[in-house]
Amino acid sequence: MDSAITPELVANSWALLKPFHDKVGYNAPKVDRDLAYGDHARHRLDVHTSGDEKGAPVLVFVHGGGFVGGDKHVPGAPMYDHVGAWAVRNGWVGVTITYRLAPEFTWPSGAQDVAAAVGWVRDNIASYGGDPTRIVVAGHSAGTVHVASYLVGQGGGSLDGVKGAGLLSGFYQIPDGAERGELEVIYFGDRPSAEVSSLPGLLETEVPLIFAVAERDPQFSHSQVAALTAAWFAKKNAVPQVIFSEGHNHISQIGSIGVDDLALGAELARFVNRVTEKGR
Amino acid sequence: MDSAITPELVANSWALLKPFHDKVGYNAPKVDRDLAYGDHARHRLDVHTSGDEKGAPVLVFVHGGGFVGGDKHVPGAPMYDHVGAWAVRNGWVGVTITYRLAPEFTWPSGAQDVAAAVGWVRDNIASYGGDPTRIVVAGHSAGTVHVASYLVGQGGGSLDGVKGAGLLSGFYQIPDGAERGELEVIYFGDRPSAEVSSLPGLLETEVPLIFAVAERDPQFSHSQVAALTAAWFAKKNAVPQVIFSEGHNHISQIGSIGVDDLALGAELARFVNRVTEKGR
Repeated sequence: MDSAITPELVANSWALLKPFHDKVGYNAPKVDRDLAYGDHARHRLDVHTSGDEKGAPVLVFVHGGGFVGGDKHVPGAPMYDHVGAWAVRNGWVGVTITYRLAPEFTWPSGAQDVAAAVGWVRDNIASYGGDPTRIVVAGHSAGTVHVASYLVGQGGGSLDGVKGAGLLSGFYQIPDGAERGELEVIYFGDRPSAEVSSLPGLLETEVPLIFAVAERDPQFSHSQVAALTAAWFAKKNAVPQVIFSEGHNHISQIGSIGVDDLALGAELARFVNRVTEKGR
Repeated sequence: MDSAITPELVANSWALLKPFHDKVGYNAPKVDRDLAYGDHARHRLDVHTSGDEKGAPVLVFVHGGGFVGGDKHVPGAPMYDHVGAWAVRNGWVGVTITYRLAPEFTWPSGAQDVAAAVGWVRDNIASYGGDPTRIVVAGHSAGTVHVASYLVGQGGGSLDGVKGAGLLSGFYQIPDGAERGELEVIYFGDRPSAEVSSLPGLLETEVPLIFAVAERDPQFSHSQVAALTAAWFAKKNAVPQVIFSEGHNHISQIGSIGVDDLALGAELARFVNRVTEKGR
C-alpha cells in the first residue's frame, strides 16, 4: 500500500478490510447514537455497549479527517463503529465522537470538543455501565492532534478520570511557516508552533501515553515519531511506547482494529487494561 | 521491577516467570542437544522440533550474558529452551546456540560464532525439517550485539538464507573511551567505536530488522534506541520497527516469550512469519 493519503488510499484500504470486518462483525450489541454533548450539530457521540457492563473502563475514540472531515459513523461502513465494537469485546464501554470542523472552527475547537465529550462521559457514562473514573481517550490522525491538545490543556476542561491516552499517527510538533501543510494552515492558521504544538506538554503530562505509527504512514508521521522519541529521551532518559503497525498505511492502521489486532489493537488493549486497573 | 541488571534482578525475574513457564511447558517435543558447529566446547547448539516439521522456517536464538556468561540451556530452568519451544509452537524449527566468551575470546569472536552457527543451520537443518533458505536470527542483549555484528559482516560468513533478524535490547553504537562500560571493554578492548559499532552497517543492510526495548531496560538500552531511531530516520525518512515490552525489565523481556506474548513474542512472531513467507 502506498503512503500518500489520497481518497483512493482511503477507499482502497477500507475496501480491503471490509470483508474481514463483515466476518468479525463491527457493531456492538447496543449502540446509542447521536447523544448530544454540546450545542453544535457535531457535538454528538455514540455509546457502544453489550448492555451488560457494570463499572467498565471507557474508551473514547476521536476520528481523523484532516481537521476538515470525518465522522464517528459512516452508515454501511465499519468506520468507526468497529472501534466501539472492539472496545465492547474487550470488556469496556466504547464511545465514538464527532467534533466541529475547520475551516469554520479552528484551533483549539477540537481540543475544546474532546474536553466537552470527556466531560459528558464523566457525567453520564455510569448509566451505560461505564466507570467515569477509568477513561482512556484515543485519537487517530487529526483526532490525535485534538486529544493531545486536550491533554496539554489547550482546550480547557478537566482531566479527571482520564487514566491514559492513545495517540495514533498524530502530530505533536506543528511546523511554522512554509513547512506548515495546507490542512494545518486551515486549522491552526498562522498561530506560532510554540502556541499550538502539544509536544512540550506531552513531555510533562502525568497521563500515561501510548503512541502508534504505521509502517507506511507518510514521511511526516515518521518524522513526528522521530522528533517525539528524541525529545522524550532527552527529557526522561527513556524512549516512549510506540506501536509500529507493520505493513499498514495511515488508513488501514486504524481499520485494522478488531481484524488484525497484532498490528495495533492487541498492544493498545494491553495498555488500556493496564492503565485502567483498579487501584492504580 | 528495577532496571539495573544485577544477579538479583536476573534471579527474581526468572523466579516470577517460572510458574508460568511450568504451566505452558518450556520444552519442545524433541530437543537435539549439544550439536557441534565448531571445534570449541561452546560451539554447540540445540535443535528444537516437534519431530514433524517439513521445510519450516528456522529461528536461531543467541542468548545474552554480558559477553562473559550465559548459556543456551540451564538445566531445570526455562532459559532458553522456552524460546525453542515457542518457535516450535509457531510452526518453526528452533535453534538455540552458545558461543565463545570473553575475556578469553574478544571481538569479533561472537560474530564469527553466529556466522558459523548459521552456516551449520544452512548445511544441516533440512534433516530436522527446517528450510535452510528461510532463517531468522534473533539475539538478546550481548547476543544481539553478536547478531548485529554478524549481519554487518564483522564476523565474516554468509548471509545466505537469512530472511530477517530480531535485535532485542542490544547495543549498536559502542561508545569510545570513558563512556565504554566495563563489560564492553572486556569484549571490545580499546578498538575504536567506528570499527566495532554495527549501527552504520545496520542502516545499510537489506536484511529486514525488528528491534525491541523493555520499558524497564537500563537507560543505556533506551539510549541505543533513541540513537538508532534518529539515525534510521535520517537515513530512511522512516522510523525503525521497535517493540516496546511494556512493564518488563531487561531479563523478564526475553523471559516473557511464550508466557506473556503481547509483551514481545506476538509482534516478533508476526515479523518472523512475514519475512519467511514463501516467494518473498
